[in-house]
Amino acid sequence: MAINRIRIVLIEPAHPGNIGAVARAMKTMSFAELVLVRPHEFPSEEADRRAMGSIDILQRARVVEDLTEAVADCQLVIGGSARERTFPHEVLDARSCAEKLVEETEGGILAALVFGPERTGLENADLDRCTFQVVIPANAAFSSLNLASAVQLVCYEVFVAHQNLLADRPADASSASFASSAAPLESSHLKPIHQPSSQVEMEAFFSHLERALDSRGYLDGDMREVTLMKLRRLFGRARPNRGEIKLLHTLTRFMNREGE
Amino acid sequence: MAINRIRIVLIEPAHPGNIGAVARAMKTMSFAELVLVRPHEFPSEEADRRAMGSIDILQRARVVEDLTEAVADCQLVIGGSARERTFPHEVLDARSCAEKLVEETEGGILAALVFGPERTGLENADLDRCTFQVVIPANAAFSSLNLASAVQLVCYEVFVAHQNLLADRPADASSASFASSAAPLESSHLKPIHQPSSQVEMEAFFSHLERALDSRGYLDGDMREVTLMKLRRLFGRARPNRGEIKLLHTLTRFMNREGE
Repeated sequence: MAINRIRIVLIEPAHPGNIGAVARAMKTMSFAELVLVRPHEFPSEEADRRAMGSIDILQRARVVEDLTEAVADCQLVIGGSARERTFPHEVLDARSCAEKLVEETEGGILAALVFGPERTGLENADLDRCTFQVVIPANAAFSSLNLASAVQLVCYEVFVAHQNLLADRPADASSASFASSAAPLESSHLKPIHQPSSQVEMEAFFSHLERALDSRGYLDGDMREVTLMKLRRLFGRARPNRGEIKLLHTLTRFMNREGE
Repeated sequence: MAINRIRIVLIEPAHPGNIGAVARAMKTMSFAELVLVRPHEFPSEEADRRAMGSIDILQRARVVEDLTEAVADCQLVIGGSARERTFPHEVLDARSCAEKLVEETEGGILAALVFGPERTGLENADLDRCTFQVVIPANAAFSSLNLASAVQLVCYEVFVAHQNLLADRPADASSASFASSAAPLESSHLKPIHQPSSQVEMEAFFSHLERALDSRGYLDGDMREVTLMKLRRLFGRARPNRGEIKLLHTLTRFMNREGE
């Protein structure tokens, strides 16, 4: 999987709580590899506490002396920065950056996403080691994203780009064998549980409603067709399922003067 | 601007630090309106500390007693949930949700994004007050997003969707003439024809319906709450406009044994 080939690198994180929060953010988006360059305090109880169920990422995290060591084996290094600097980097927004990362890592490339210290962001010397710079679209008047939030957003974009990639693949590519059954299951993940009724069932309800309203004399006069159309639109929009249609029939029975 | 018409609602946030982190996340994405339902501790120093440069959002935050009050004037209520429940809500992923929010609020709709308590998420009773549910795509094996991270991600998607909308507008539409300034053109441009009722109007209808069904003895017994919940979901999904709410009141009057 492409995401396994993307490393998150934090340079001089000052607050151990942020390291834990970054681990949690990473894990929610299926990232696993964290490298810390000169962390102020690590390991730390505060980091563990904030990591919640993602302590495994902290336990496997590597601590190194400089960025060069952190990204030594990487073929693509992207520096995260809240603001765009006046550097000759190609600047990508988070979404394009994610697409690039997924495309390249799917092709076997090993990549790193690098984030600077909380207060200052990446220094020029570190940015120089990056091939691209990623900028997260944000409020120009207040773009001060928390470190873990920045990591969260970029990891999320990568996760979504990766999902989109899997979804775009022809179905037979992922369902070729029974062994690789994960992908089709995942893609059906967001399928709504709601099963709207058939048109036949809807029509039966509309007829019933019409009879009930007739028993009240409500549809007499010029507005009959308009009123029926309005009811059609209203209930059609709700797209009731089978159980709900039954409920609507009950309500309709109550409307009927004869209690039909 | 559309984002001004989207309110963030937190239900029973347990940790004041999270409230501050949510405020910061909101402000980075140009959100301004925060409503807190029964916060465990607020105002608080910890919230202020984590809010950084977004204390203004905390200072303007409203504290209310329940979700009904928090979203009384809203025409679109979307509940955030880490996991998909077995409910017949239409489930949107964060990106589609953002597009919907931007489209509707640009048309003048007032909207709310609702997030539940840190540990448990939204309760069913609160989800029943939502028209849609938003799910953030995440690692199926560990989808435990921090509250502020969840708010950050959805707000980010809205910010990007809003930027995309502005970028898609033909330049000549807003610069056609000096006389017709941007605002009127914009508002007529995307205005949806359908204007859903406010939550207050919806609640008035649900009360009326409840009384009518009581007059029939239909709500006697164990299933009372379940039936009311089903009706809420069904009619909530239809998002009736003002004329349709009047029509529904008429139908409800017919259901009432006393013809109330």
